[in-house]
Amino acid sequence: MTVNKPKVVILGAGYAGLKTAVDLQKKLGINEAAITLVNKNSYHYESTWLHEAAAGTLHHDKMCVDIKSLLNSKVTFVQDTVTDIKKDEQKVILENGELEYDYLVVSLGFESETFGIKGLKEHAFSIANINACREIREHMEYMFSKYRTEQRDELLTIVVGGAGFTGIEFLGELGNRIPQLCEEYAVPREKVRLICVEAAPMVLPGFDSDLVEYAVAHLEKKGVEFKIGTAIKECTPEGIVVAKGEEVEEIKAATVVWAAGVRGSSLVEKAGFNAVRGRVMVTGDLRLPEDDKVFIIGDCAAIMNPENDRPYPPTAQIALQEAEVCAKNVAVLVRGKGEMTEFKFDNKGTVCSLGHDDAMGVVFGKKIYGWKASFMKKVIDNRSLFLLGGAGLVMKKGKFKVF
Amino acid sequence: MTVNKPKVVILGAGYAGLKTAVDLQKKLGINEAAITLVNKNSYHYESTWLHEAAAGTLHHDKMCVDIKSLLNSKVTFVQDTVTDIKKDEQKVILENGELEYDYLVVSLGFESETFGIKGLKEHAFSIANINACREIREHMEYMFSKYRTEQRDELLTIVVGGAGFTGIEFLGELGNRIPQLCEEYAVPREKVRLICVEAAPMVLPGFDSDLVEYAVAHLEKKGVEFKIGTAIKECTPEGIVVAKGEEVEEIKAATVVWAAGVRGSSLVEKAGFNAVRGRVMVTGDLRLPEDDKVFIIGDCAAIMNPENDRPYPPTAQIALQEAEVCAKNVAVLVRGKGEMTEFKFDNKGTVCSLGHDDAMGVVFGKKIYGWKASFMKKVIDNRSLFLLGGAGLVMKKGKFKVF
Repeated sequence: MTVNKPKVVILGAGYAGLKTAVDLQKKLGINEAAITLVNKNSYHYESTWLHEAAAGTLHHDKMCVDIKSLLNSKVTFVQDTVTDIKKDEQKVILENGELEYDYLVVSLGFESETFGIKGLKEHAFSIANINACREIREHMEYMFSKYRTEQRDELLTIVVGGAGFTGIEFLGELGNRIPQLCEEYAVPREKVRLICVEAAPMVLPGFDSDLVEYAVAHLEKKGVEFKIGTAIKECTPEGIVVAKGEEVEEIKAATVVWAAGVRGSSLVEKAGFNAVRGRVMVTGDLRLPEDDKVFIIGDCAAIMNPENDRPYPPTAQIALQEAEVCAKNVAVLVRGKGEMTEFKFDNKGTVCSLGHDDAMGVVFGKKIYGWKASFMKKVIDNRSLFLLGGAGLVMKKGKFKVF
Repeated sequence: MTVNKPKVVILGAGYAGLKTAVDLQKKLGINEAAITLVNKNSYHYESTWLHEAAAGTLHHDKMCVDIKSLLNSKVTFVQDTVTDIKKDEQKVILENGELEYDYLVVSLGFESETFGIKGLKEHAFSIANINACREIREHMEYMFSKYRTEQRDELLTIVVGGAGFTGIEFLGELGNRIPQLCEEYAVPREKVRLICVEAAPMVLPGFDSDLVEYAVAHLEKKGVEFKIGTAIKECTPEGIVVAKGEEVEEIKAATVVWAAGVRGSSLVEKAGFNAVRGRVMVTGDLRLPEDDKVFIIGDCAAIMNPENDRPYPPTAQIALQEAEVCAKNVAVLVRGKGEMTEFKFDNKGTVCSLGHDDAMGVVFGKKIYGWKASFMKKVIDNRSLFLLGGAGLVMKKGKFKVF
């Protein structure tokens, strides 16, 4: 071991951080750098599948991967929680220690953003991580079981705040899950209300209107009521208060799931980086403008889309592509030679699932619907696994039972 | 059809009522009597298995039997809830109608008895029926899921009130269930507290001390803490307050299950029968002393044990034996000939399960422990099914996967 080999520290083992670690351990020799990956949990989870864990349609074991199983001896894994980043001292503070770095990769992922709506933090769930999703799953089931003894209709009312990607995919899973719960608890399906509340005037911004219509029609057939252009004013222990223009309505609901806002990790702001809602406008090679030792990738990075002059939405696809470039650039810095690569997003498309058997979206510029889209969604999910853990991981955790 | 054939009405399709109906449809010709069986649910459930549904170790589908599937055309099944019995008018009031009878069999089963302990009705669960047990199962699981997001220790504390038969069998199942929940929610086993509180100075009254010691040792090994000679003074939304002599203690617990008291149906008292806690001291041929048209069997009947001059505890075994005698006697009255049979309890023994793989008890006067007892318990469970629905029902719902 060389004493003075550069120290590379990667924070977070989501798509971005884990892919960076996996790529670096392939690129760099054991004597070239000391690579450390820090993550709160011992496992990585497929965060794009969380809505399935929350609905209870896919068990979280199927979406969690033991991080160590994907690393070789070149990467040291530290299971700990990051509490601060001191960039002037080139050091990361953990709950149980601290780490020095020469190069830092910040890939700390997203948090739920409630925009200061009253009571939301206290009384609504959010599809934020494995623990939160397991609680949503159990909460809904508990409410069904309670209905059999208390007979209060609001126990069977589920409000989803937000008709964006996460909200719609979650509703799609609920469309499959609710009939199972109705059977288990002998509840008539018509007693269950699934309400989607969206403040914006449209469902799924960014998708073409025929794709949106397809999704809405599918979900309405599954019993979803849409309240569009309707803002949640308050969340209480009893439900929500919404307003559409002047009209204010109270909806009693035992389950409220907030799926309308994400932001980058608040640690990014705590560290003093120049960020808006936890997202930093990075340089072309994915670094912090004010500190060239620090890379920021994944949900904490903002990269402008030249086509519409807005930042790309944070997705797994862009995170994985950023990680590839980040790993290349870290290797250049570690070796002190080579050219830095500029990041350019190659949008292969987006598919929005509507339950396990339907979906819609755009792939390679082409619109697809129904079983073809559902099949493509699973191909995309399996591709993420492949990029992180190769064919072995796809075999273990992949989605194959397509039809 | 004869217009004036005697009307026999049976209330409740528990062990006692269902067995009476099944026996009568074998004994009587279609023109001899009009038999009606009334039950709230469309299904009969094995109430001696309820602790398994509550723990979540056996799915309730396995313990429910569609009542109509066990009846032939001689018995009319009415799914309705009994609200009153007017014995002077020989009629039963239902939620959705009324029924006249010539002979009535009251087999309305048990209710939970809280002895007026403050807050118990509001804040504790009881192992009372399928709906209640499903709610207990889901409640515990929800608390485990909540622990992962809230980290409050009391979420993992489960109090069982009562160290009688139901309490001990429930704890036995929890001993198997808790490790599963710990795995599902990544909770360390030592964080979970299982506390059994019993006001009496002993566990399992009626069992010999070596059997009791066996059970207690087994459950303590599974992590159960016993608080014997300790009374629950109050149940609050936060847990319970107990007292042992002068010493008062508050135990924070998210789950409190009351398993310490049962009584006969309160309808028996509403009907004006002479009863103590819903149990009527019946005549030797199982009738109401003040009305020879009315039979009372099962948990609403009290029959003295000549050996100790106390009433036999209400069990499935005695209910099934009472039903046999009751059916014989109803047939005698319907036909207006024959001798009435006096009931005599033939105690074949009792086995108390301690989870799916251990048990202890007395069978045909012999003490048994461990796997032998566990095996016998399943034989007894299957025998109940056999008495109600023959070999077909045993095949469908029986417990075979013994080891």
